[in-house]
Amino acid sequence: MAPRVALTTDIGEGLGRWSLGDDDALLEIVTSANIACGFHGGDPGIMRRTCAISVKNNVAIGAQVSYRDLHGFGRRYIAIPGSELRDDLLYQMGALEVFARLAGGKVDFVRAHGALWNVATKDTEHAQALVDAAVEFGGDIPLLAAVGTEVWRLGKEAGLRMVAEAFVDRAYTPEGLLQSRSEPNALLTDADAAAARAVQMVTEGHLTANDGSEVDVTAEALLVHCDTPGAVDIARKTRAALEAAGVELFPIR
Amino acid sequence: MAPRVALTTDIGEGLGRWSLGDDDALLEIVTSANIACGFHGGDPGIMRRTCAISVKNNVAIGAQVSYRDLHGFGRRYIAIPGSELRDDLLYQMGALEVFARLAGGKVDFVRAHGALWNVATKDTEHAQALVDAAVEFGGDIPLLAAVGTEVWRLGKEAGLRMVAEAFVDRAYTPEGLLQSRSEPNALLTDADAAAARAVQMVTEGHLTANDGSEVDVTAEALLVHCDTPGAVDIARKTRAALEAAGVELFPIR
Amino acid sequence: MAPRVALTTDIGEGLGRWSLGDDDALLEIVTSANIACGFHGGDPGIMRRTCAISVKNNVAIGAQVSYRDLHGFGRRYIAIPGSELRDDLLYQMGALEVFARLAGGKVDFVRAHGALWNVATKDTEHAQALVDAAVEFGGDIPLLAAVGTEVWRLGKEAGLRMVAEAFVDRAYTPEGLLQSRSEPNALLTDADAAAARAVQMVTEGHLTANDGSEVDVTAEALLVHCDTPGAVDIARKTRAALEAAGVELFPIR
Amino acid sequence: MAPRVALTTDIGEGLGRWSLGDDDALLEIVTSANIACGFHGGDPGIMRRTCAISVKNNVAIGAQVSYRDLHGFGRRYIAIPGSELRDDLLYQMGALEVFARLAGGKVDFVRAHGALWNVATKDTEHAQALVDAAVEFGGDIPLLAAVGTEVWRLGKEAGLRMVAEAFVDRAYTPEGLLQSRSEPNALLTDADAAAARAVQMVTEGHLTANDGSEVDVTAEALLVHCDTPGAVDIARKTRAALEAAGVELFPIR
Repeated sequence: MAPRVALTTDIGEGLGRWSLGDDDALLEIVTSANIACGFHGGDPGIMRRTCAISVKNNVAIGAQVSYRDLHGFGRRYIAIPGSELRDDLLYQMGALEVFARLAGGKVDFVRAHGALWNVATKDTEHAQALVDAAVEFGGDIPLLAAVGTEVWRLGKEAGLRMVAEAFVDRAYTPEGLLQSRSEPNALLTDADAAAARAVQMVTEGHLTANDGSEVDVTAEALLVHCDTPGAVDIARKTRAALEAAGVELFPIR
Repeated sequence: MAPRVALTTDIGEGLGRWSLGDDDALLEIVTSANIACGFHGGDPGIMRRTCAISVKNNVAIGAQVSYRDLHGFGRRYIAIPGSELRDDLLYQMGALEVFARLAGGKVDFVRAHGALWNVATKDTEHAQALVDAAVEFGGDIPLLAAVGTEVWRLGKEAGLRMVAEAFVDRAYTPEGLLQSRSEPNALLTDADAAAARAVQMVTEGHLTANDGSEVDVTAEALLVHCDTPGAVDIARKTRAALEAAGVELFPIR
Repeated sequence: MAPRVALTTDIGEGLGRWSLGDDDALLEIVTSANIACGFHGGDPGIMRRTCAISVKNNVAIGAQVSYRDLHGFGRRYIAIPGSELRDDLLYQMGALEVFARLAGGKVDFVRAHGALWNVATKDTEHAQALVDAAVEFGGDIPLLAAVGTEVWRLGKEAGLRMVAEAFVDRAYTPEGLLQSRSEPNALLTDADAAAARAVQMVTEGHLTANDGSEVDVTAEALLVHCDTPGAVDIARKTRAALEAAGVELFPIR
Repeated sequence: MAPRVALTTDIGEGLGRWSLGDDDALLEIVTSANIACGFHGGDPGIMRRTCAISVKNNVAIGAQVSYRDLHGFGRRYIAIPGSELRDDLLYQMGALEVFARLAGGKVDFVRAHGALWNVATKDTEHAQALVDAAVEFGGDIPLLAAVGTEVWRLGKEAGLRMVAEAFVDRAYTPEGLLQSRSEPNALLTDADAAAARAVQMVTEGHLTANDGSEVDVTAEALLVHCDTPGAVDIARKTRAALEAAGVELFPIR
């Protein structure tokens, strides 16, 4: 049986007058869109437009939920109580649901953005808040997360459909963690190298870490950030390399 | 056949540390709650809680949608293009829908808050944005508005279920318009007088304006603002007076 | 005596992760910077950096004050009471003052952004709020505005140092008003034509309107918006054309 | 020589339609006001008014600076880089300076609010950001903090005038730390007990912790939060008890 993977991108991350990334080009390449819901980026008009294009292009709609943090683009941890975080996440998912529905689709999956993604790998309270939001949103909605993290464990425990996520454009440590954005070389901007590593992840189940060592990885969804320099080229080459390697690309639903 | 009316209140209008009004007491009295959706007041935790109490008390859930204006409490007109306003309103309705659903209910109706309510009585672009949001939200959702306004006309034209709204706690001009909040005596704070006028509206179809003249009014829904001084007393006496007059009270669904 | 003019630009209009325009290039060309103060764009870090570069380049520091409107980039009129608007403007000016002082400068002048600029041309309450903010800020601070507008009249009446402003990159109507951004051809993006018209404004005191007619104009300060397509080229060619025509360029202080 | 202490309160913490605490009454009692600057509460109108009353009542004006967190009232830690935090704090101080100046005063001192206060007791990066903001603001501005904390140490090291702060209305642990607000009995609401403990702190240099043990404390400034239940009564009784004990009350300047 052919290996399968979803190709995803963080998208719809402009705000009013400000734009970020080439959303139109990326939505021609990926199979699944992690759409910003207004808390770290995105606004209602952008959400509507991104949902409409996604449905037109048969791209699955994901709620990219975040801490409430426009000034920090959701990349700052906020020490909010778990129950309040859960409600903030549900609020974002509900808002996106309207625009997905209007476009003829639905919210197909959910994923944490930025600092929340990182925090939920280790922090039980915020990981549980994310899991609870997915469970309460209902509809057997899949949650994207990396295997081996706290949120993965709690999601499995709660009976959620967990989808194993890995990053095309981020460097990994030998421990299989993301290299922090505050360090140099955190981003992979060589599109060919990123694409080759993506194929390696999906077909061989491991990747080369930033020290040259090999790390095991499970990749059912591969992410390219829309604001990584050269994102469109990285996404395009990754898709081509995956297809050339016989990998089947699917939308997360 | 007995006259019928819904008794409503603007509610859930705190924000984080700040509270406003006695929500618990009001939700024991009204039949329908106009719940703030986070743009003029309200936050996800308050929305969740307000929906839960509403469903428990058999109170209908209304989306009280607003301009994006926390600092002005939604009482400032904002010259936003109609299509952007429509999307802002849909965003709010979608966010509330999640919490309504979680509580075992749904968004039963929609209503404009503050400046948007006033503007939509006359301004075609913003009235149409409100109507479009209700139409696109779907589910044959009723829209509350005053008879004779621009939004009433456009809502009827669009085939919406329009519910005729009148105010228990606000003074009216001889033209049947609300006296501006910037003028003295805009609020009726004498609970007995307000209750008597409410009965007059429902059973006789007219009210006494601020100059003593009689004005025709259609009242299928009667509103008490949660932040009017003595709101709970006004709501309680209004309900008692309506019941004593044989008026049937119903939730808007 | 040689004609004189200030060359200005709206600048520092990014927000957190989002950037807008090529600030570094523009600050090499203009004599005066209209720096966003966080209400329509800009954030404390951007303000600090923009002030530092301005002082280094001998560029005057202007407070570009706005309605509170990040989502609409300050391009939406907000019906806020004049006294509240005045305080919002003072807040912005004070915040900028810290960063100007830290850089070794001060807030040299003040100017309204976007919708507030437009509204203050006609609306007495908001024009007065702007004038009052400048007067209360103190230090005999100059206020930029177009001759013949309501804010010009009120500023003169209050004894403010008014600086006559005209636009390099915006089309004018035969009445000498800005063509609305919602209409086509509102922006002049032909750098050579814009530069030539700028020289005409300063040396001849008139400009060619969008219908080909000539309109009188007083231009003591000429503005290029940082987000106009080709802004750097327009600014550079305008500066070169002004210098070639013997016009002296000065910072507003 | 008589013992001396400043009596302070967190104040001006409403926002637009929402109010919090009885500011007018408290400003009749305290000697120094910690005025919210718009990031956790407060808005430009409230800041103007609070500064005006403070100057009229000979109350010193303090900038109560905070993380950017209206929804969490500044009581949530935010993992913002130190340099960005420093600029956020300077922005708030500058904004307040305008209103202090308009009232005929100046920003007399600075103090961290909520989560930032707590974090700066231990976290070097955020403590240093607070110290840097005070140093860069200039004017030899005093910084309030508790003796023995990280911010105290760093402030001393930077040559700041540090003012030793203690709390009238908060329970202390045997380690001399504040009992967390998430725990029961974190607040002292018995005005007589709080007042007696305040006198003990100032005249004897120790206080009774929540386990009955005695803890050393240095108190040059005593704080009552405006949103503690019974705040006005606590402040009034504390002032009376201090005066009865011969303690001199002074504004921090």
